[in-house]
Amino acid sequence: MSLKVTILGCHSATPRTSAHPTSQLLEIQNRFFLIDCGEGTQVQLRKYKIKFSKIKHIFISHLHGDHIFGLIGLISTFRLLNRNAKLHVYGPKGIKEFIVTQLRLSHSFAGYPIEFHELISKESELIYEDEKVTVHTIPLSHRIYTNGFLFREKIGERKLNISAIKKHSEIEICDYQNLKNGNDYQLENGEIIPNENLTSNPLKPLSYAFCSDTSYKEDIVPIIKNVDLLYHETTFLNDKKDLAKTTKHSTALQAAKIAKLANVDKLIIGHYSSRYKDIEAFKTEAQEVFHNTELAIEGKTFEL
Amino acid sequence: MSLKVTILGCHSATPRTSAHPTSQLLEIQNRFFLIDCGEGTQVQLRKYKIKFSKIKHIFISHLHGDHIFGLIGLISTFRLLNRNAKLHVYGPKGIKEFIVTQLRLSHSFAGYPIEFHELISKESELIYEDEKVTVHTIPLSHRIYTNGFLFREKIGERKLNISAIKKHSEIEICDYQNLKNGNDYQLENGEIIPNENLTSNPLKPLSYAFCSDTSYKEDIVPIIKNVDLLYHETTFLNDKKDLAKTTKHSTALQAAKIAKLANVDKLIIGHYSSRYKDIEAFKTEAQEVFHNTELAIEGKTFEL
Repeated sequence: MSLKVTILGCHSATPRTSAHPTSQLLEIQNRFFLIDCGEGTQVQLRKYKIKFSKIKHIFISHLHGDHIFGLIGLISTFRLLNRNAKLHVYGPKGIKEFIVTQLRLSHSFAGYPIEFHELISKESELIYEDEKVTVHTIPLSHRIYTNGFLFREKIGERKLNISAIKKHSEIEICDYQNLKNGNDYQLENGEIIPNENLTSNPLKPLSYAFCSDTSYKEDIVPIIKNVDLLYHETTFLNDKKDLAKTTKHSTALQAAKIAKLANVDKLIIGHYSSRYKDIEAFKTEAQEVFHNTELAIEGKTFEL
Repeated sequence: MSLKVTILGCHSATPRTSAHPTSQLLEIQNRFFLIDCGEGTQVQLRKYKIKFSKIKHIFISHLHGDHIFGLIGLISTFRLLNRNAKLHVYGPKGIKEFIVTQLRLSHSFAGYPIEFHELISKESELIYEDEKVTVHTIPLSHRIYTNGFLFREKIGERKLNISAIKKHSEIEICDYQNLKNGNDYQLENGEIIPNENLTSNPLKPLSYAFCSDTSYKEDIVPIIKNVDLLYHETTFLNDKKDLAKTTKHSTALQAAKIAKLANVDKLIIGHYSSRYKDIEAFKTEAQEVFHNTELAIEGKTFEL
């Protein structure tokens, strides 16, 4: 079980020399998922030495520029790097037109397959599943249609108890997978050894919830309940809570309230407005309600 | 007369940490013209402390990503900065759809007027004129419809020869503008003093030609003849002249040949392919044919 989030950009609105708009790379079970793609994301990927070819799935929360303007450049660069592998792009309805219009007008073609998964549902839905990971949407409340994303490891295989297994010389290595899968073992004399005598419980599956951009919305609490790691946007501090409400963003206090209600293990905050010069104030405010809060900082990696 | 070109980006294809795609800021007669706008241009503008509000005209050579992907971000940032002034965007037909599609899908509106001047002509044409400056297109030969741009100061006012004027007590300060405009002066006794006795020729108007992207094309020589400053792309060195031909780009040698044929005063080269680690080689190659060649380097300013 492994989960690692690298912050590529964590500021709101316009990119500046040392303040990139939202983008994160999630590594979960050796899958590399890019989450949001503001202008300059491809340069940030290079800066933090992330191999472009590892990215096969991109999740876009919403179509505001600070979350998507870097996507067309990344898609074009994939082609220049002679990518062949299919790219899956998940995002709001319209994302295909957003990208394809630019490719068409610049007489450019991807050269590799792109599958757009356009989202319209206002309910949480399963949008990705393989043998080890699931991804569900987290419907958020912003000025335009926006989803967060909940990434979960599936429950893994049971762990072999080798010393217990060795007591039964009949059990061969070729039986191990069956035991990992949770099956009991029948000896030649007919005796059945329960699986739990030969294995122990698998590691706890890890989970990561990404929630940006959104106003304070308690409806998401049941969806993200008990996740190990929650990223929640905090564009403003509490001094601007009215502005947060008008623009459908959150304050640090509100993000912390959501983290507490959802009983998450750790909270990461980001999407800071450029009006605040000292982002430490976001952490201080959030920790009043939820202690285990950390600041998103460009280049920082959170690993579970 | 004043002309100043600041290089914001001078590399081809994909942006990297220290290698931005094409963009330049031209200051001519206190007008600020942005030429091309690759991804990250707005960050480069901030880095080199260029006030966003000064930019009222943007000229885009063609719709390949490394010349336009930064435009939507810049247009959006203008809005966030509460711009009111009209923005003029000059570029190939399709540029309006390119930008407006993204604004529509992200439910964003510029908040200030944008006038798109869509170009279709394959002949050089006047696309901008005011009392001090003209801009003509330079039809180039690239894989898609592409124009360079020729920026020219108009001939200025004649310079007053104050010592000659002072010899005639009848000539008042309120007559000076008439003299600057080239008119003769009639004394009360009827005698006419020719203008050239009271003024000298105006400063030579300056000119700048921007040519990117293009294959070697001698047709442009008459258009850019005798300009003071020529920027000509040099994606490749002569060792890759076949690749230059296929991709419709130029070598350093070819750029220098154009500079020589056009009898320009100075040549700036750029749009380097990332395959070359040492860009000095571009200068060395070009100088074999045209000595007064300089390398475009990010942040460098060429001032006449």
